[in-house]
Amino acid sequence: MDKFMLAAIDEAKLGLAEGGIPIGSVLVYDGEIIGRGHNKRVQSGSPILHGEMDALNNAGRQPAKVYQASTLYTTLSPCSMCSGTILLYGIPKVVIGENRTFQGEEALLTSRGVSIDVVHSEACITLMNNFIRNKPELWNEDIGE
Amino acid sequence: MDKFMLAAIDEAKLGLAEGGIPIGSVLVYDGEIIGRGHNKRVQSGSPILHGEMDALNNAGRQPAKVYQASTLYTTLSPCSMCSGTILLYGIPKVVIGENRTFQGEEALLTSRGVSIDVVHSEACITLMNNFIRNKPELWNEDIGE
Repeated sequence: MDKFMLAAIDEAKLGLAEGGIPIGSVLVYDGEIIGRGHNKRVQSGSPILHGEMDALNNAGRQPAKVYQASTLYTTLSPCSMCSGTILLYGIPKVVIGENRTFQGEEALLTSRGVSIDVVHSEACITLMNNFIRNKPELWNEDIGE
Repeated sequence: MDKFMLAAIDEAKLGLAEGGIPIGSVLVYDGEIIGRGHNKRVQSGSPILHGEMDALNNAGRQPAKVYQASTLYTTLSPCSMCSGTILLYGIPKVVIGENRTFQGEEALLTSRGVSIDVVHSEACITLMNNFIRNKPELWNEDIGE
């Protein structure tokens, strides 16, 4: 598997080990990871630190040209918040670990010209299936349900 | 003017006094402000802490039923990121100070059933006009341009 998706999965596993929601993400620019992160709802008590948001936050302030030449890797199909952030910064490509346990705003992203690649990772699916089975209330909270 | 919009404007002014981008927001539930915030790109070096995001973050983890009965006040028309977050959590109503200096994803929000009220506040317009004139590069960075 792509080393960047593996890095996103490592982030998801790190989040799980911390007692959190196992979703990870990395932002890649010019062949290098410039931000990595994972969902921190539990760890930071934050409703906005989804994995993708944490990765972008950890990448710090970047000029538009960096985002516009970057790829965002995420273990799970991005929700409305994370998709809106991808649109704000004009990130042109998103690589998604899986969209079987949750499908976010892929249609919106595609309609705005974002390129999407879903890799259907069994590792990502297993992480989420186990998590959702074990902590359904926490998962519902994370997606506003 | 509505006391909640005044509170959002106070947040915007606080951000400006800190050397930041003058956009503020409050989340209101059951007649009370449960989260207030302002843009912290400069103060926290964060690309995700727009005013609305900061207000939601400061409200902490809330159950879906709270968001679904809340109103978000913001001094400026919400960008893609903040609009996506409104959609994620099912916030049904957004009161917007102004959309003259920047128009965000109001059409998307409306298409998804979110009620929008733009109050065309001269105070909000003046804050943004002055800021954009003084720090155009910072403003462009904040909206990914």
